[in-house]
Amino acid sequence: MQLTFLIFLALASNCTWAGREPQPMSLEEGATVLTSQALESELAWSKLLVLCDEVGHRFAGSAALEQAVSWAADAMEADGLDVRLEPVTVPVWIRGEERVEMLAPMQRRLDVLTLGGSVGTPEEGIEGEVLVVSSFEDLEARSAEAQDRIVLFDQPWESYGQAVQFRSHGASHAARHGGIAALVRSPAPSSLSTPHTGAMRYEEDVPEVPAVALTTEDAAWMRRLSEAGKTIRVRLTLGAHRDGEAQSHNVIGEVQGRENPEQAVIIGCHLDSWDVGQGAQDDGAGCVIAMEAGRLLAALPIPPRRSVRVVLYANEEFGISGGKAYAEAHAEEIPHIVAAIEADTGAGQPLGFRIDMRDPETGERDEAATQRVIDALQVHMRLLQPLGADQLVSSWSGADISPLVKQGVPGLGLDNDKTGYWPIHHTRADTLDKVDPRLLARNVAAMALGAWILAEVPEPLEAQRVAR
Amino acid sequence: MQLTFLIFLALASNCTWAGREPQPMSLEEGATVLTSQALESELAWSKLLVLCDEVGHRFAGSAALEQAVSWAADAMEADGLDVRLEPVTVPVWIRGEERVEMLAPMQRRLDVLTLGGSVGTPEEGIEGEVLVVSSFEDLEARSAEAQDRIVLFDQPWESYGQAVQFRSHGASHAARHGGIAALVRSPAPSSLSTPHTGAMRYEEDVPEVPAVALTTEDAAWMRRLSEAGKTIRVRLTLGAHRDGEAQSHNVIGEVQGRENPEQAVIIGCHLDSWDVGQGAQDDGAGCVIAMEAGRLLAALPIPPRRSVRVVLYANEEFGISGGKAYAEAHAEEIPHIVAAIEADTGAGQPLGFRIDMRDPETGERDEAATQRVIDALQVHMRLLQPLGADQLVSSWSGADISPLVKQGVPGLGLDNDKTGYWPIHHTRADTLDKVDPRLLARNVAAMALGAWILAEVPEPLEAQRVAR
Repeated sequence: MQLTFLIFLALASNCTWAGREPQPMSLEEGATVLTSQALESELAWSKLLVLCDEVGHRFAGSAALEQAVSWAADAMEADGLDVRLEPVTVPVWIRGEERVEMLAPMQRRLDVLTLGGSVGTPEEGIEGEVLVVSSFEDLEARSAEAQDRIVLFDQPWESYGQAVQFRSHGASHAARHGGIAALVRSPAPSSLSTPHTGAMRYEEDVPEVPAVALTTEDAAWMRRLSEAGKTIRVRLTLGAHRDGEAQSHNVIGEVQGRENPEQAVIIGCHLDSWDVGQGAQDDGAGCVIAMEAGRLLAALPIPPRRSVRVVLYANEEFGISGGKAYAEAHAEEIPHIVAAIEADTGAGQPLGFRIDMRDPETGERDEAATQRVIDALQVHMRLLQPLGADQLVSSWSGADISPLVKQGVPGLGLDNDKTGYWPIHHTRADTLDKVDPRLLARNVAAMALGAWILAEVPEPLEAQRVAR
Repeated sequence: MQLTFLIFLALASNCTWAGREPQPMSLEEGATVLTSQALESELAWSKLLVLCDEVGHRFAGSAALEQAVSWAADAMEADGLDVRLEPVTVPVWIRGEERVEMLAPMQRRLDVLTLGGSVGTPEEGIEGEVLVVSSFEDLEARSAEAQDRIVLFDQPWESYGQAVQFRSHGASHAARHGGIAALVRSPAPSSLSTPHTGAMRYEEDVPEVPAVALTTEDAAWMRRLSEAGKTIRVRLTLGAHRDGEAQSHNVIGEVQGRENPEQAVIIGCHLDSWDVGQGAQDDGAGCVIAMEAGRLLAALPIPPRRSVRVVLYANEEFGISGGKAYAEAHAEEIPHIVAAIEADTGAGQPLGFRIDMRDPETGERDEAATQRVIDALQVHMRLLQPLGADQLVSSWSGADISPLVKQGVPGLGLDNDKTGYWPIHHTRADTLDKVDPRLLARNVAAMALGAWILAEVPEPLEAQRVAR
């Protein structure tokens, strides 16, 4: 009975090959099929529409994240993938009501977002004079002035990597110099009074003081007031607090490989978002890019040589618990993970992949191994040339896959134009209208091709890895 | 004693003409001097810095507006103009606390701004199902569905003029069809979750229902939800209310003409702003453009033939009381007002002037008269060519001068590139950082040249006017 059914399925799904055994496709044939199917389909957009509009933002610990987990599992099952959920414990942080007011030189309510992980204030709030600094070095030099002050980090925007250190570590730096709170200029190239939240961390040996993102406008205003010799006083009243842990799940959808099913190419993203906006570009887009690439690979008449595993990580934004849980649960399989690809920079025009090889002993970037992977993949990138997505660069691949990549798994970040990404990143403005359906489909194609190449080439990236 | 002092001043201010009577400059000489002085000066920026950062937003009826009045009067006096204040009664409207929440299909607090002039809600708020329409015609067609609903006007952005009718009249249209409140998509070409406030008006024969601006993102989201068949419920809790009237002042600074001091070219703007942001582009920029043009004209070695009168109108945003009060107080002088120029579209690259001639009987645009003025001015526009500001077009000139223009005074709107203006107009994002100091100086030059030409040419625009 079961055999009959399998034969029926085999015939039904291969009617175009009727009369002969279906043959594996060449790399080129597969690339052509995947590209045209990705570009002709509107399903990525339909999926993102539901995730954004009907689930909405989905922060770690929220009911919405669990709704997203069910939705993603159902969708991938309907798409023909083998779906399973894997438990992830996530930390819970509640934003609460937040109110930041300038008291002097004038009274103004400021448009802010408390940084994720920050402590709150007593109910009556805390008040203090603002010290404006532009870097940690500047704060160091003005240490004597920082005592009992609220320290504003008003760093210029050079890049996200450069700016984000003040968001991550500003509070502890402020506290180390006697500061009672940190205000941080939102890391963004442009703003329409748009505060950007994001994770911050406390260092262990200093008091935990509140940390809040200001708009670039308000940060610049305070800097100018300070330069004009004005005394700035601010009151913060923040309901932020941590609230234990919650259970969530990584959602995994598998396309079984035809020859080496135990070898897998992971294509991933994070299902969670910050607790504002819709998490459309960060990382709803990445999720539907990975899900749709999985659907297209599952729909090939003959599966690729190796398995392709879609992993929607439960929590990236607030401590990368999804990625860490995955790497821990699958520690034994790490040598069999051919590569891990992540989509977490939105859905601008795809450019190629950021390649990231690490020394499994130290977790540090190994440029020689990175170059070996670039060389090995370069020969296949002609397949992505029609998409304009044929660039390979040595760079950070992604947060969710970082626990794997640090252990030597080749990391690939789906790279794309981030011009529209940084202004809305972690803001209320990260909404569906910021996503272009046609560019989204191009990213699906690029992701599907990357996975296809890695799952189909005769030799996986074994020789390029750093010896453990 | 007084005479001695005047002679001393005349000598001191004309040292380059030592040994002969100072001669009136040619139009070209004046234009060259004014252009170079405007472009070399940083005083427009310094003025705007103080107005934005130290006064901040300055809504009709606020203490900040009175602070701005004093600041502007002091600044123009220091710049050598004859300054006087003229009383203006302004209506007072208080925004109060505002909270708009989606209740279904999910719970979300929305980022809104109540529209200026709107009534509030009872303390417990009002709740209702949302009907999404895209135009007044659409509402008309769906009238039966509007009863007891909250009507969302989600009009596409074509132009400000097209979109603003829903802000101005949406509430009364909704009420006419039984609606209990109006939500209005913010009129903007782009948004980072940026609600735009602005004035609304109630029609007399329908109930007054609350009116709130949504972000373009939330409006688009509700439209999509509605198209997906979802029931949307919203609760509005608005503290908005009117609060009688207050006294304010138009601030007037005069440069006396040397031959026909009773004939005046008015250069104006509005000193008030909405109650959010800093009113930097709307209309702080216009104020310092007019003030600086006045300063430069007052500093000429010989004054222009006719007077130039800087008028900073007390209240444009909430009912044009400043412009109306001026036209009323000076009704007798209207035949002697050579022209009224307004700067109220920010400080993008100046392009020229929008010319606006009206029939004093009807107040309607007179295209023939407009063209006569364009023809009369065209010959002088070569003087603005180096600035790229030599275009004359037939269009609306400005709100503050509209009470004069409707009575036949030639209206000129200082025109400039508004690309950066509409996204921040009436928002928290209208802040100093959006103004480019170099473009601001170019606008000062264009305004100074426009005033110079009209105050200096042998014949004023008498022949071009529509006979009363």
